[in-house]
Amino acid sequence: MSNYQSPRGTQDVYGVNMSKWHAIEDLIRQFTHVYNVSEIRTPIFEHTEVFKREADSSDMVNKEMYTFTDFGGRSLTLRPEGTAGLIRSFVQNKLYTSPDLPVKFYYVGPNFRYERPQKGRMRIHHQFGVEYLGAKSPLVDAEVIQLGVSFLQAMGLKDLKVLINTLGDDESRSAYRQALKDHFASHLETMCPDCHRRFEQNPLRILDCKVDAQHDAMASAPAMSQYLNEESRAYFKEVLDIFTSLDLTVEISDRLVRGLDYYTHTVFEVVSSNEDMGSQSTIFGGGRYDGLIPYFGGPEMSGIGFGMGIERLMVAAEAEGIDLAQENPLDVYVMPLAKEYQHTAASLLAYIRSNGYRSDMDVQGRSLKAMFKTADRQKVSVLLFVGEEVNEGKVRVKHIPSNTQLDVSFDELIMQLDHWLNEDHDHSNCACQVSEEAK
Amino acid sequence: MSNYQSPRGTQDVYGVNMSKWHAIEDLIRQFTHVYNVSEIRTPIFEHTEVFKREADSSDMVNKEMYTFTDFGGRSLTLRPEGTAGLIRSFVQNKLYTSPDLPVKFYYVGPNFRYERPQKGRMRIHHQFGVEYLGAKSPLVDAEVIQLGVSFLQAMGLKDLKVLINTLGDDESRSAYRQALKDHFASHLETMCPDCHRRFEQNPLRILDCKVDAQHDAMASAPAMSQYLNEESRAYFKEVLDIFTSLDLTVEISDRLVRGLDYYTHTVFEVVSSNEDMGSQSTIFGGGRYDGLIPYFGGPEMSGIGFGMGIERLMVAAEAEGIDLAQENPLDVYVMPLAKEYQHTAASLLAYIRSNGYRSDMDVQGRSLKAMFKTADRQKVSVLLFVGEEVNEGKVRVKHIPSNTQLDVSFDELIMQLDHWLNEDHDHSNCACQVSEEAK
Repeated sequence: MSNYQSPRGTQDVYGVNMSKWHAIEDLIRQFTHVYNVSEIRTPIFEHTEVFKREADSSDMVNKEMYTFTDFGGRSLTLRPEGTAGLIRSFVQNKLYTSPDLPVKFYYVGPNFRYERPQKGRMRIHHQFGVEYLGAKSPLVDAEVIQLGVSFLQAMGLKDLKVLINTLGDDESRSAYRQALKDHFASHLETMCPDCHRRFEQNPLRILDCKVDAQHDAMASAPAMSQYLNEESRAYFKEVLDIFTSLDLTVEISDRLVRGLDYYTHTVFEVVSSNEDMGSQSTIFGGGRYDGLIPYFGGPEMSGIGFGMGIERLMVAAEAEGIDLAQENPLDVYVMPLAKEYQHTAASLLAYIRSNGYRSDMDVQGRSLKAMFKTADRQKVSVLLFVGEEVNEGKVRVKHIPSNTQLDVSFDELIMQLDHWLNEDHDHSNCACQVSEEAK
Repeated sequence: MSNYQSPRGTQDVYGVNMSKWHAIEDLIRQFTHVYNVSEIRTPIFEHTEVFKREADSSDMVNKEMYTFTDFGGRSLTLRPEGTAGLIRSFVQNKLYTSPDLPVKFYYVGPNFRYERPQKGRMRIHHQFGVEYLGAKSPLVDAEVIQLGVSFLQAMGLKDLKVLINTLGDDESRSAYRQALKDHFASHLETMCPDCHRRFEQNPLRILDCKVDAQHDAMASAPAMSQYLNEESRAYFKEVLDIFTSLDLTVEISDRLVRGLDYYTHTVFEVVSSNEDMGSQSTIFGGGRYDGLIPYFGGPEMSGIGFGMGIERLMVAAEAEGIDLAQENPLDVYVMPLAKEYQHTAASLLAYIRSNGYRSDMDVQGRSLKAMFKTADRQKVSVLLFVGEEVNEGKVRVKHIPSNTQLDVSFDELIMQLDHWLNEDHDHSNCACQVSEEAK
C-alpha cells in the first residue's frame, strides 16, 4: 500500500487550487488571442536526440532528463523544456513555408526534470511558452517580451524587473568566449567541476554558476558588451529603442547568459523583487536563437521565445497577495422530497441542464436538513423541491437571494429560472413575473 | 538528422486541427460546468504499482505500458488510462471525507500505450474522462452515461448506440465466472493463448477476445443475466427504469464485459453505427467499480466513470461529416508605410491590444502589396496605415466590410474601432460616427 502515493516532485491539482490554474489558463487564452498567437501541441516525449544536442553543457541535458527505451528499442525522453520539440515540429511539418512570418506559437503543458523538489520547482512542472519563428527583427524581440510582461501585469503582479542582455551573433560570441577563457584559465583550479566542463564546452555558462557566484574571478570577468561587433550592437540598440517607444522599462544585465546553450542576440529574464520569492525569483526568461531551426534541418531562420513556469507563477501571485481562486456557485439544486420522486427529479434536472444552468440533485435520499446543508455549501441560487406537486405537473422553486418561493408548472420552469438567473432575460415579456405577483 | 521526427504513434497538433481540439475542449468545459463536475489533474506518471494491479489480465497492463526507472531507482509508468491515478489521488488526499457525495471529477489529458498505431489509435492519445465517486445509486450510473451521450449529441453526432450490461456484485460475478470456466474448459485447447491466461485470471474477458470472437464456444456461452442475484438484478432494473424516465434509449448487450478487470455492476459502451468508423466503433465506455477505492486504501466506497478518446471523437465527427474547425479572424492589421514609422506602429499596436482587439502588424518592412495579401489571408476587419499622418497625431483606418476609410486622431482610435468592431458599443454617444459622416 505504501507506494500508492503521487511520485515525489509531482502534485494533484483539484478544488480551489484547480480554479487558480483555470484563472491563469483563461488569461493565457485571452492574451494569446489578442496577440494573434496560435496554440501548438507537441508530444510529451520525443526521440532523445531532439533534446540531447552535441556540445550542450546545460545541467538539464546532462543530469536531469527522464530518458527510457520503448519496446521497439527507441530512446525516448520526456520533454524537459518546450522549445526543442516545437522547433522539431516547425521543421518536420515545413511550417516555415508560411507566407506570414513570424509564425507565432504558444504552448502550455508539462515539462519533466529530475531535480530536487522545492517550492515552485517540481519534477513535473508546467510551462506557458511562446515562440516567434522565421522573422528576425528587434520589433519581434520587443513584442515577445512585452507579451510576457503585460501578461504578468494583467495577473496583478507588480514587483517586476525586466533584465535584458545580448549575446550577439556568432562572431561576437566567439570573441567573447575566447576572452572568457583567457580570463578564467588561471582561476579554473579553484572553481567547481561543472565550471571545468563549462570552460571547455561553453565558457559563457560559467557566469551562470551558482556554486562559484561569489568567486573573485566572476566580478573581474570581461563583459559581453565589449566584444559585440557593429551589427550585434545596432540590433540590440534598436531593441532598447523600441522598449522606449513602448514605455516599457528594462534593465541591462551584462551577466545574463541563460541556462540553455542555443541563445544568440537578445536574452531576457523577468524577475520578481518580492522577498517571499526567495531563490526562485525568475518568473520567466528566454531569448533569440539563430541556429536552432537550421540545427533541426530547417532553413536559415531565427526564432525567439520564452518559457514561464506556471507553478512559479502561482508562488509569485501568492507572494504578492493576489488571490486567483474563482468561485463556482451552483444555479439550481434539485431536492427530491421522497424516494418516489427521484426519477422525476432526475428528468427535471436533465431538462434544466439542457437549458444551460449549472445544476445538481441529491441522489442519496437524504434528509431535508442534509440537502439544505449541501445547497448552502454549494452556494445555490435556486432550490427546486420535487414532491407531491408533481402529480399536478408542478414543482416548488425557491430563489434564495430574494427569498421568494412559488409553485410553477413544468412548462413555466425555465422561464422562471431565466427570470431569476439570466441577466439577458427580457422581463417585459416575462410570464414568470406575473405568476410571482399572483403569489 | 534522421531522428528529428515525432515518435511513431504521436502527432503535432496546430492550425485548423488545433481549432477542432479547442471546439471539443470548449464543449467539455461547458458540459462539465452544467453538470457540476470539477476538473482534477493527476501526474503524467505514477509509481508503477498504481497501474499494475495483481491479477489484472488486461492487455494494457501486460503488454502496453511505458515503464521506466528514474534516477532514484523508482519504477514509474506513464499513465495508460485515467482512472487509477485519479482514485489514487482521491484516497491519498482523503477527498472521500467530502460531505457532498458523489465527488464528481473530470480529467482531460494524455494517456500512453505502446500499441500498433492506426486511425484513431495513437501511442499518445488523449482522453476526456469523468468519475463519480463515493455514492452508489442507479441515479448516478444514469447521470454519468447521460452526460457522455448528451455531450456527443451536442457535438452533432447522430449514429449512436448506447450498449449497457451489468456484471453484478462479487457473488453474482463469482457464480458467472465459475459457469464460464465450466463452459470453456472443454474448448480451451482450440482457443488462443491469451484466452488460456484469461481462463485462469478472469474468464469474463474471454468474451472480449478478438481472436476467438467467431469460435463456436462463444455463441453457446452462458449469459451473465442468468447468474445475477436478487440485489444485482434490482440495481440494474432501476438503472434501466431511470433511462426510461430520461427518454434515453439503451440496448442491453449481454456479452459486454469491458477491457479492465475492476468493473462491477453497470458497464456500458457508446458505439457509432457509422460505417466509416471501421473497427474503432466504440466512442466511449466505462463502468462501476466497487473494489477500486478500497484497493487503493480508501473506505468501502464505489465509483463509476467513463473515458472517451479525443482522437477517436475526431474520427467519429469526420465520419459523420461534422466540421469542428473554427475561424479566428484578426480584428486589426497595422501596416507601417515606411521603416521610420515602425516604432509608432508598434506602440499603436500595443495600445489596440490593451483594449482587447486581436491585432498584429508587419515587422518585416514589406511592400504594401505583400501586407495586403497578409491582411486578406488573416481575414482582417480593419486596416491601420501608419504613415506621415502620425506627425499630426493621426492614422488612416479602413473598415473592410463597409469599405470605409478615414483619418482618426490617436485619441479617437479606440472609439472608432469600438464603433466598427464591438457589438456592445453605444452608437448614440459615438463621436466616431460623426467623424465618419464628416468624411
